[in-house]
Amino acid sequence: MSQATHSALIEDLLAGKHRALARAITKIENRSPGYRDLVSELHSHTGNATVVGITGSPGAGKSTLVDKLAKQYRDQGDTVGIIAVDPSSPYTGGAVLGDRIRMASNVGDMDVFFRSMSARGQLGGLSTATADAVKALDAFGKDRIIIETVGAGQNEIDIVKTADTVVVLVQPGSGDDVQMLKAGILEIGDIFVVNKADMSGATKTVADLEEMIHMRGDPMAGLDTGHHGFEIPEHPDSPDGDDDEDRWEPPVLKTVATHNEGITEFRGALEKHYTHLKTTGGLQANARIRYAEEIRQHLRSDAARLLESEIEAAGGIDRLADQVADRRTDPYTIADELLQPLTECVENRLDS
Amino acid sequence: MSQATHSALIEDLLAGKHRALARAITKIENRSPGYRDLVSELHSHTGNATVVGITGSPGAGKSTLVDKLAKQYRDQGDTVGIIAVDPSSPYTGGAVLGDRIRMASNVGDMDVFFRSMSARGQLGGLSTATADAVKALDAFGKDRIIIETVGAGQNEIDIVKTADTVVVLVQPGSGDDVQMLKAGILEIGDIFVVNKADMSGATKTVADLEEMIHMRGDPMAGLDTGHHGFEIPEHPDSPDGDDDEDRWEPPVLKTVATHNEGITEFRGALEKHYTHLKTTGGLQANARIRYAEEIRQHLRSDAARLLESEIEAAGGIDRLADQVADRRTDPYTIADELLQPLTECVENRLDS
Repeated sequence: MSQATHSALIEDLLAGKHRALARAITKIENRSPGYRDLVSELHSHTGNATVVGITGSPGAGKSTLVDKLAKQYRDQGDTVGIIAVDPSSPYTGGAVLGDRIRMASNVGDMDVFFRSMSARGQLGGLSTATADAVKALDAFGKDRIIIETVGAGQNEIDIVKTADTVVVLVQPGSGDDVQMLKAGILEIGDIFVVNKADMSGATKTVADLEEMIHMRGDPMAGLDTGHHGFEIPEHPDSPDGDDDEDRWEPPVLKTVATHNEGITEFRGALEKHYTHLKTTGGLQANARIRYAEEIRQHLRSDAARLLESEIEAAGGIDRLADQVADRRTDPYTIADELLQPLTECVENRLDS
Repeated sequence: MSQATHSALIEDLLAGKHRALARAITKIENRSPGYRDLVSELHSHTGNATVVGITGSPGAGKSTLVDKLAKQYRDQGDTVGIIAVDPSSPYTGGAVLGDRIRMASNVGDMDVFFRSMSARGQLGGLSTATADAVKALDAFGKDRIIIETVGAGQNEIDIVKTADTVVVLVQPGSGDDVQMLKAGILEIGDIFVVNKADMSGATKTVADLEEMIHMRGDPMAGLDTGHHGFEIPEHPDSPDGDDDEDRWEPPVLKTVATHNEGITEFRGALEKHYTHLKTTGGLQANARIRYAEEIRQHLRSDAARLLESEIEAAGGIDRLADQVADRRTDPYTIADELLQPLTECVENRLDS
């Protein structure tokens, strides 16, 4: 894409053209040439949207809950952008059907912009791509952005961490959910929702969750690492007593999304958490941690490319591995030799 | 440590002094100054040991099984080194007690050298440290090296992958084991052992495992990625028909380690797998893949250090994140700016 077309895309996106938004996200998803410059330019237009991340096992009713929430946002006059990410699927195929069904509930209302994203074989980069797509929606001017993802592995955790508020959706009496909670998602949830709360076992699931959250909140358990599992640096002048007031106690809500039950309370809890973040400074603190992580992530993947070209210049990884196998050299020596010129470069720069 | 003392340590280790071996592994575990040179020098003395990795849930009877296997190796005149790694524990405290109990079964026999290693807060580096410790045992002259680890997360998988043969230990009728198998350990197991086979449910567990392995081995399922989940490059001249002969069908064995039952068959299966690796070229192929991964791993962690000094030189990550939060710049631009001098360095070198 030429620089001119590139600028036109950004201009159209900022002017509120949904087609330009869709094209920008496709560029981001595919890592097409120029996507970096695109995201760089969009960044300065971001910072106005609230971002909610929702995760939960398949079948917990995520799509329905997200649809009903989006409907309420629309009713109060807010525009909405939804990104659905499935880290376990390399195809968008399955999601296409989902798109069609989902669109049905908001037919003709382009202010609910729905978009699915898939792994496309580059798992590590999916949370980066999601963060970049969120920037496109934010710059476009969407008031409310919802990221939804399936499951609770490290990839899903990295994806929902892009949000200000993390919602964990649980289905009553499902053993999978306990496994999911064990896998680290419990620590990053700001709000827990037991959907399909008309099923038997819902009350017990709520009680179980509340107990687990209470244990997590107990400083003696050594598990309280602040919102999103990040360690929020304390203000050095804040007395220890502030801790209790600043701590967010994650609520456990009950919904029956298919019957529109509990959605208003859910929206209320989201607002409450957002207000909490604003008043405690958590919003800024989380954003800083997120940006720091984005910088490091970009540096790591760029450096990885650089290292691959160093490996190629040294004859390729197979040749190097053969030399190690033949005991002519060893992995540490190879790493030293390959990095030596880069290290010198850095040292020269720091000296000058 | 001075260069002189450093050489003395290697000399003593190669001369078969167990105290030097213990000190070398401590250096490796702690990443003490000079550990890289130490491992580099040891590498040329490696390549003579067979390495077995054993993983399984806590309580599956790993220690007992490993003890009995070590005993059989000793009885046939082989020397043995055991490294027990617990990625979930930052302390060696718990393992110390384990050491004492384990030593009891081979009292006075220093040719079973047992050593535990812990995470010490540097999880990512634990598989590297394990691989380095294995090199120390190999260079020392141990004939048989056993790596044992608890659990089945990505860290455990990275650790047991250091071995030629991966053994997965399963306890009859335990739901945890099914979870474990789901987590990706099924794909990397070369031998499965149902220990405590006198418990009820053992026959069903064996049948379940055999079915899962059969599904894994089915090329239509798209899951057959060779030994250890690595893709072994095929010889271009080998006809497609070779596939079936070269494929290792992981056996499912039954043992009652506490009663010494099934240990001889277990040792037999290990020998059979090793012979299979040797005759199919898998031993060399796996070693090459492992060395390539070691080179990349060292490069990545060295580069990460280099990048941190670049970040510091630019005023620190907090300052950079603040600039992003203020929309004065963005993460991609920062990454570009920080890497630019390194990129130029590489390009100049490749041009010259």
